[in-house]
Amino acid sequence: MAPFAGSPGDLSAAVTRHLRDFLARRSLDAAGLDARFADEVIDRLTSFVLDGGKRMRPTFAWWGWRAAGGAPEGPAATATLRAASALELVQTFALVQDDVMDGSALRRGRPTLHMEFADEHRSAAWSGESGRYGASMAVLAADLALVWAEEMFTDALDGLPDARERARVPWRAMHTEMVVGQFMDLRSQASGEETESLPLRIGRLKTAAYSVERPLHLGAAIAGASEEVVSGLRRYGAAVGCAYQLRDDLLDLYGDPDRTGKPIGGDLREGKRTLLLVLGLRTARERADAETVRTLRSAVGDPGLTETDVRAIAGILADLGAKDAVERRLGDLVDEATRCLAATPVAPVACRELQRLAHDTVTRTY
Amino acid sequence: MAPFAGSPGDLSAAVTRHLRDFLARRSLDAAGLDARFADEVIDRLTSFVLDGGKRMRPTFAWWGWRAAGGAPEGPAATATLRAASALELVQTFALVQDDVMDGSALRRGRPTLHMEFADEHRSAAWSGESGRYGASMAVLAADLALVWAEEMFTDALDGLPDARERARVPWRAMHTEMVVGQFMDLRSQASGEETESLPLRIGRLKTAAYSVERPLHLGAAIAGASEEVVSGLRRYGAAVGCAYQLRDDLLDLYGDPDRTGKPIGGDLREGKRTLLLVLGLRTARERADAETVRTLRSAVGDPGLTETDVRAIAGILADLGAKDAVERRLGDLVDEATRCLAATPVAPVACRELQRLAHDTVTRTY
Repeated sequence: MAPFAGSPGDLSAAVTRHLRDFLARRSLDAAGLDARFADEVIDRLTSFVLDGGKRMRPTFAWWGWRAAGGAPEGPAATATLRAASALELVQTFALVQDDVMDGSALRRGRPTLHMEFADEHRSAAWSGESGRYGASMAVLAADLALVWAEEMFTDALDGLPDARERARVPWRAMHTEMVVGQFMDLRSQASGEETESLPLRIGRLKTAAYSVERPLHLGAAIAGASEEVVSGLRRYGAAVGCAYQLRDDLLDLYGDPDRTGKPIGGDLREGKRTLLLVLGLRTARERADAETVRTLRSAVGDPGLTETDVRAIAGILADLGAKDAVERRLGDLVDEATRCLAATPVAPVACRELQRLAHDTVTRTY
Repeated sequence: MAPFAGSPGDLSAAVTRHLRDFLARRSLDAAGLDARFADEVIDRLTSFVLDGGKRMRPTFAWWGWRAAGGAPEGPAATATLRAASALELVQTFALVQDDVMDGSALRRGRPTLHMEFADEHRSAAWSGESGRYGASMAVLAADLALVWAEEMFTDALDGLPDARERARVPWRAMHTEMVVGQFMDLRSQASGEETESLPLRIGRLKTAAYSVERPLHLGAAIAGASEEVVSGLRRYGAAVGCAYQLRDDLLDLYGDPDRTGKPIGGDLREGKRTLLLVLGLRTARERADAETVRTLRSAVGDPGLTETDVRAIAGILADLGAKDAVERRLGDLVDEATRCLAATPVAPVACRELQRLAHDTVTRTY
């Protein structure tokens, strides 16, 4: 593996190289068990992993390592980046499975994995339901991604057994938090709970912990960071992660599908009670605007909403001041992240980069 | 953990104790994240793991350890049995997920996990489809079982790092084989392929490797067995595992639902091309009995078959000689297992027990 030079583009490319290398070896083993499995499952999974994604989790893990004094080059740096790259396989598992559970048709501008499998079933006129076949196959592909993530993580840190033991703490916590976060998300969609604290708690587990805080913690743990550094990075990570979730909520209603790779209004159709929605509803109730409350309520969880319907709801929420309120909250979170970072003794190069990443989070358009 | 005395009942009870102990600690951690998750997911998962199951995989792993000279008591024995017990969590993952994919309503005489979740959704009159909610929640519960299996396995062998590295080989192979076997099963049900070799290849991966061969391999690897012992045990395990699968196929059509805990004909309704079915069809074709071929074909994959329909098909397959042929094949496999065992230098106590387990496999009624 070539040494890693240090720019964001290089970092992302190095992560992809590690993944390509790992997947090529594992694919060869699995192809020996069944050629069709290789053609129909592994090839699709490999494309999913290699062709897309912002490499956000490995990036935060890398900067957690650097923040705690990890060297930018050498065998330990390579091992760390390789372990961090395994986070992309965990993320593949989560995305493929979430898409099945949400019934999403598009991801990164392409048909979701379960849709591809269902189309294959339909085209071949096989027996049974195409939808069920597609869901089952996608869940199996996700299983494989999760199993391989564990293998890649464990093997990467083979030569650093103490670091591996330390890194197991965030690695495991992240897995449980991801499952619990997804449970809370689906459970609240079904039961229709609407409190201001719930979307924040879900975002805290499902996005903040899983996507930012734990990856940072993982990198810092490998480097053998002090309690003080781990705790400061985690607080920064929780704030940035929550901001990331709020930005996601905004992009779902106000984003450009050409940039995000998916149609607007997915959260609305799935019945997600985002902070944006909860704040809008609260204002409408405070204004005793029963008609707007009814309009919002009937839109949440309606899978038949058109793009025009979604734009209308987005307009209503903006008029109610909910969009501004979420943007203010988002700004506050980034300020909080900045303060946490400033109060933590981290390597200056990492401090600058984490500052930049926090800023990117609130301004990103995809 | 109390030392393990050695009778089959003691072994099973010791496995359950290890699982109860592990689940109690993990449940406490997860309950801290969300109380509802603990009530609705972890409690159900815990009942599933603790209230049922033959503990077959830990049993084979234990006797793999003993066969390779592992001591019946002491810290290494306790660690091995604890690692072996983690196989029950892998099995929980596989059963819960398979039930979702097959749409099965009953397991071990009780509603399957996804049915329980769907019923909860229906009773509470929550929004969205109850079936989809049930499937998603069951898949999440399965995810947690898989993640916890890895943790239990890794932690159990904390004090035996070399044994852990050796055991990773069968542990990992088993995970991949399980996924590939399930893929082949669903893929062949959908495409309706009917060769004699396919059900054997699927059974080889999905049942033999996963349920017998790899557990034995795992136990032997922890004990540091020679290549010769590992290879002999694996050959014994492949034969017993294939026999186990054939017995399962027979029980599906000729078993007693009160003993098996599920209705007869599940494989038939799901469209599984078992060896039993493939042999019956072949004989009917050889006899140019077009009507019987039609009858069999129209039954395979028909979810609406009644118990009477299933009994009729079972009778037809018996008349065609397919039942006898499968029973002969099963007997041959047990003979082969016995020969492999006799040719392998394993500890006499384990040899006797493995002989008994092979015999139980072909005579079991549940």
